[in-house]
Amino acid sequence: MGTRAAVLGASGFAGAELLRILEVHPEIQVTAASASSQVGKALIEAYPALRSLAHLSFVSVEEALESDVDIVFSSLPQKAGMELFSLQEGPKVVDLGGDFRLDDPGRYRDWFGEPHANPDALGSWVYGLTELHRDRIADADRVANPGCYPTAALLALLPLVSAGMIEPDRIHIDAKSGVSGAGRAGGEGFDFCSANENLSPYKVTGHKHIAEIEQELALAAGRQARVSFVPHLVPMNRGLLASCVAQAVPGSSEGDFSGVLADAYRDEPFVRVLLGGVPHTKRLSGTNFAEVAVHFDARTGRVLAFGAIDNLGKGAAGQAVQNANLMLGLSETTGLGDRPLVP
Amino acid sequence: MGTRAAVLGASGFAGAELLRILEVHPEIQVTAASASSQVGKALIEAYPALRSLAHLSFVSVEEALESDVDIVFSSLPQKAGMELFSLQEGPKVVDLGGDFRLDDPGRYRDWFGEPHANPDALGSWVYGLTELHRDRIADADRVANPGCYPTAALLALLPLVSAGMIEPDRIHIDAKSGVSGAGRAGGEGFDFCSANENLSPYKVTGHKHIAEIEQELALAAGRQARVSFVPHLVPMNRGLLASCVAQAVPGSSEGDFSGVLADAYRDEPFVRVLLGGVPHTKRLSGTNFAEVAVHFDARTGRVLAFGAIDNLGKGAAGQAVQNANLMLGLSETTGLGDRPLVP
Amino acid sequence: MGTRAAVLGASGFAGAELLRILEVHPEIQVTAASASSQVGKALIEAYPALRSLAHLSFVSVEEALESDVDIVFSSLPQKAGMELFSLQEGPKVVDLGGDFRLDDPGRYRDWFGEPHANPDALGSWVYGLTELHRDRIADADRVANPGCYPTAALLALLPLVSAGMIEPDRIHIDAKSGVSGAGRAGGEGFDFCSANENLSPYKVTGHKHIAEIEQELALAAGRQARVSFVPHLVPMNRGLLASCVAQAVPGSSEGDFSGVLADAYRDEPFVRVLLGGVPHTKRLSGTNFAEVAVHFDARTGRVLAFGAIDNLGKGAAGQAVQNANLMLGLSETTGLGDRPLVP
Amino acid sequence: MGTRAAVLGASGFAGAELLRILEVHPEIQVTAASASSQVGKALIEAYPALRSLAHLSFVSVEEALESDVDIVFSSLPQKAGMELFSLQEGPKVVDLGGDFRLDDPGRYRDWFGEPHANPDALGSWVYGLTELHRDRIADADRVANPGCYPTAALLALLPLVSAGMIEPDRIHIDAKSGVSGAGRAGGEGFDFCSANENLSPYKVTGHKHIAEIEQELALAAGRQARVSFVPHLVPMNRGLLASCVAQAVPGSSEGDFSGVLADAYRDEPFVRVLLGGVPHTKRLSGTNFAEVAVHFDARTGRVLAFGAIDNLGKGAAGQAVQNANLMLGLSETTGLGDRPLVP
Repeated sequence: MGTRAAVLGASGFAGAELLRILEVHPEIQVTAASASSQVGKALIEAYPALRSLAHLSFVSVEEALESDVDIVFSSLPQKAGMELFSLQEGPKVVDLGGDFRLDDPGRYRDWFGEPHANPDALGSWVYGLTELHRDRIADADRVANPGCYPTAALLALLPLVSAGMIEPDRIHIDAKSGVSGAGRAGGEGFDFCSANENLSPYKVTGHKHIAEIEQELALAAGRQARVSFVPHLVPMNRGLLASCVAQAVPGSSEGDFSGVLADAYRDEPFVRVLLGGVPHTKRLSGTNFAEVAVHFDARTGRVLAFGAIDNLGKGAAGQAVQNANLMLGLSETTGLGDRPLVP
Repeated sequence: MGTRAAVLGASGFAGAELLRILEVHPEIQVTAASASSQVGKALIEAYPALRSLAHLSFVSVEEALESDVDIVFSSLPQKAGMELFSLQEGPKVVDLGGDFRLDDPGRYRDWFGEPHANPDALGSWVYGLTELHRDRIADADRVANPGCYPTAALLALLPLVSAGMIEPDRIHIDAKSGVSGAGRAGGEGFDFCSANENLSPYKVTGHKHIAEIEQELALAAGRQARVSFVPHLVPMNRGLLASCVAQAVPGSSEGDFSGVLADAYRDEPFVRVLLGGVPHTKRLSGTNFAEVAVHFDARTGRVLAFGAIDNLGKGAAGQAVQNANLMLGLSETTGLGDRPLVP
Repeated sequence: MGTRAAVLGASGFAGAELLRILEVHPEIQVTAASASSQVGKALIEAYPALRSLAHLSFVSVEEALESDVDIVFSSLPQKAGMELFSLQEGPKVVDLGGDFRLDDPGRYRDWFGEPHANPDALGSWVYGLTELHRDRIADADRVANPGCYPTAALLALLPLVSAGMIEPDRIHIDAKSGVSGAGRAGGEGFDFCSANENLSPYKVTGHKHIAEIEQELALAAGRQARVSFVPHLVPMNRGLLASCVAQAVPGSSEGDFSGVLADAYRDEPFVRVLLGGVPHTKRLSGTNFAEVAVHFDARTGRVLAFGAIDNLGKGAAGQAVQNANLMLGLSETTGLGDRPLVP
Repeated sequence: MGTRAAVLGASGFAGAELLRILEVHPEIQVTAASASSQVGKALIEAYPALRSLAHLSFVSVEEALESDVDIVFSSLPQKAGMELFSLQEGPKVVDLGGDFRLDDPGRYRDWFGEPHANPDALGSWVYGLTELHRDRIADADRVANPGCYPTAALLALLPLVSAGMIEPDRIHIDAKSGVSGAGRAGGEGFDFCSANENLSPYKVTGHKHIAEIEQELALAAGRQARVSFVPHLVPMNRGLLASCVAQAVPGSSEGDFSGVLADAYRDEPFVRVLLGGVPHTKRLSGTNFAEVAVHFDARTGRVLAFGAIDNLGKGAAGQAVQNANLMLGLSETTGLGDRPLVP
């Protein structure tokens, strides 16, 4: 029999996507799902298509954690998981909540405005950008799933930074997300009539995702990274695009940049490098795939690098399952066979 | 009796918007409208809401120009107007087609890949970014209406460059447009099923709008400007946002930047400066208004400047009418009272 | 100086549309606007485009009614206006809230499940479907603006019923509305991610709009009407279409039906009869126009009649202003010159 | 090794959906795909996500049919398949093109305006509404896949007609489809800017789908059926809803109708009966599921029955695969495990 899994925060969008993926996963079986506001309600009422989970009802977080599971997927709100996963024992955990992505308690405090409640634990978590830390993830019991924006941006930028082809301290990321990135709660500005036929930036300085982007870029570069980052809300349900610009090191050509990306992702099952092309988010919708592309603007000496994902797929639940597959010794692609709708 | 106007290219989106605006303009009366593929068809068939134009039928460009008009609005495709408007005599012209925006024949050849057919004429055209060249426009007989992207980007950037607060050679513009920006012809990728729920960049280097952006920035800066520019297609009908990033001159604060924008646009009837806020394209839809905002990222020393418009309004037909009002000695805001739909 | 008006419920969608229309109305001046949750806030903060109202702040309903106004536009929630407008004195009132549309207190009780709080007043209100009751509206001090669905359905059906060409007791109406029809409050199911790319019927029996539809059809027919009515939610901001089917009286032809509609609306400023065509909601967006069409299905002997409007225009605020113009002795079309955006 | 399949018309939307489904079908392997305008092009260029088909290139229809396949899925345009499938020999065929849905050559001529090119063949085709003709489909070599609208309408209506609970000669169907229903060709009116934020009916009398709806209803009723049918275009990519109204036989109650539907679909793997609820198309997107519901309007004695599907899923490619599974002796649900995206 398969691995038993709990999904925490199963009424949110990322939680729902976890259930959708895991419902047909051949090796992982959801045996508990928490949703604090819906305890006792049958899952099938909320998700009528997930018929193989019809025997389950939503439980509390506590009840889910006390059940006998091998792995926990947590998409609880920020800070909710900080205490829950303090112990080294217990089931493996993939946390989508953003509490364990930074290695350094000092950096955490700087970005979140208060000390981490569980600073000693930070060292035992691995940052779950699968393509970057695959081996460490396979050995880990605790994986901090990356943010959606960092996933797209880092997939586009990391190989270029690692190869020393762009300066890590002059990177700008202009990112755009479909509305589901705001979560189910939504609120003012996220009702249909406000978001439809509208486009706007938000939180144009100091978005918390910058912290993890700079952390990983610095790691790759071997020196400090400095990133400005502007997210935007786009009137579509799913899809995320990070459009990055950086200064190229002198003497480079378009082929050099494309070559680096192509080499980096040659054997990757979920990253498609578009040589001479550009990403389209729709081609990724409902999947764990990413599209990356790089172009060199010889006139200005700048590099334009693009990373696109489904914010709920590779940007959340898909990558969480990809990581879980590794942590459980399964083939990395297991259960991630969804193909995007055309059209 | 009022001024008589011809609209060339009246079956395209910008031409349609010109008709929509002019139909209720109290001083300008459309007396001829060309649409080469629909000669002889009644305007009212194409635009049933424009009942005061019910007596007109589409004519050829030639017929429209031979009619007795005081001003011509031309939204013909690129290069179509290049020969038409070679003479100094004849009616006043506002050209939306992009043939006369560059002062310098050499720059034209560099960006368009061939010599301008009418290079001597370039000097007699004024670049029609109203807020920048208001006085020259009022005196001009030939106005080259700016591109949609340049309008949004320049409104955000020009005051900052003029004030010497950002470096003109390290500016990056990430721009996003609704689908109407592609024109009515559209084609592959612009059918509903392809464009809906999709987001993608296009022409990520070498977009021709860069030429006019750099021209005007250099003029303001008194030295060369270097801009990288990445446009994106967003699934909405109208709306355009230019998100710009630049290096601040040392020693500046957020207030300095906001103050410059606020001063620059204090008395402008169509530019709204959002202090501490961000633009929303929907608030501009169907109008000649622009929203601009600037934020300073002290952490990186970078400035984030935003300009938003309706690509068919201030980005095309609205600004053309604003310019025509000046050229005709009318109040600049005449006939431009449309208010955006909420929601 | 012009007529002074109060808008009650000015933070809702219909209230916002009233402000948008009245802001440029040459004869009516908004001097008070109520929004109970935003008392004291400047209108310009909520509606930055409405600059000529920049001197106003939201007040309470009471304060608005105590101010010196000639006419009140009330888009308060259902039942909120029932007591407010009990007196015969005071300013003229156009009520958009639905409390005074039924003549008969008994019918009110049947459909709303409780007695009307102010039954004696019902007789002094005129049902404000302008095209039907124009003369009575012009003489009235109290006009009950019709519901959005009834407006579209009745415009399509009334001339056919009046002419005795369809049976009033076998009519079915399948209606579709953009999401703004649900009001600003929205709630579950109206967030962008739920409503986008979705289509569903709701309240498929017993919708309260049936009561006013049957009332007006019976009046026109001189005998009882029986209507089934199914509304649907469509993923767009504005627009409403009523697709009606009825049994034709024997011996009729398509031309007979079209002729009746054409005759009925020949001189109407806001109703466009599409002979051989079908309505498109987008052509009406932001305007007070309606499109109606009728087709005869000879094979089944049924008549298919269509009425389309902007639910916030002719379906709410536009028609309210049209009625107010009549009540104030102004030209009926005053201030209603908005033309739909193309595209 | 598995069953070998050819997909004809693989560049259209239904063809693309067939490829998407079959790519992960454990028993059916696509070995040929035709697309007349793209012969020689690699499938992977058009469908980058379908990596297991990367070895295939588009071929001509002739080449696909000459290849060694066990089953053909044909989504060629209307009339293209009429001659191709004239022989009794050769591979099994599921035709999505609409040429073989009518039993009766006379009815074909009446609806299509010309004689069927292959009238003798009609008798050997089975109408592929799986839930209705399951046994005959399992024995068939030729299955005519139903139209999208008929699938949704018949699933809602057939059990009620079979049970004698509604009159088959007074049924009206108001149907709504996402834009992909118009096919990839699209054309005028289907570009993003025209279709977005718009709603309109089309072909309001005489739509060819009526013929198959009446054929199947008459079969179930044992007497003539008379249906009026009005389709509409809705601004979303996928999803189809048929909202039906019919006269109830006297003496019925809501429970009677719901009971009939519940009984009819109790064991169906792909039909969800919503007792007291209504369908939402989004819950079906990308799947082979249908939702049906029925409500009784006691006030008018009418029955309101709803059927919803994904027009490309159960309305085209999904049902084609469901039928193929039966024809090949496989479990009916094989390869049809896709779950809708939430959100």
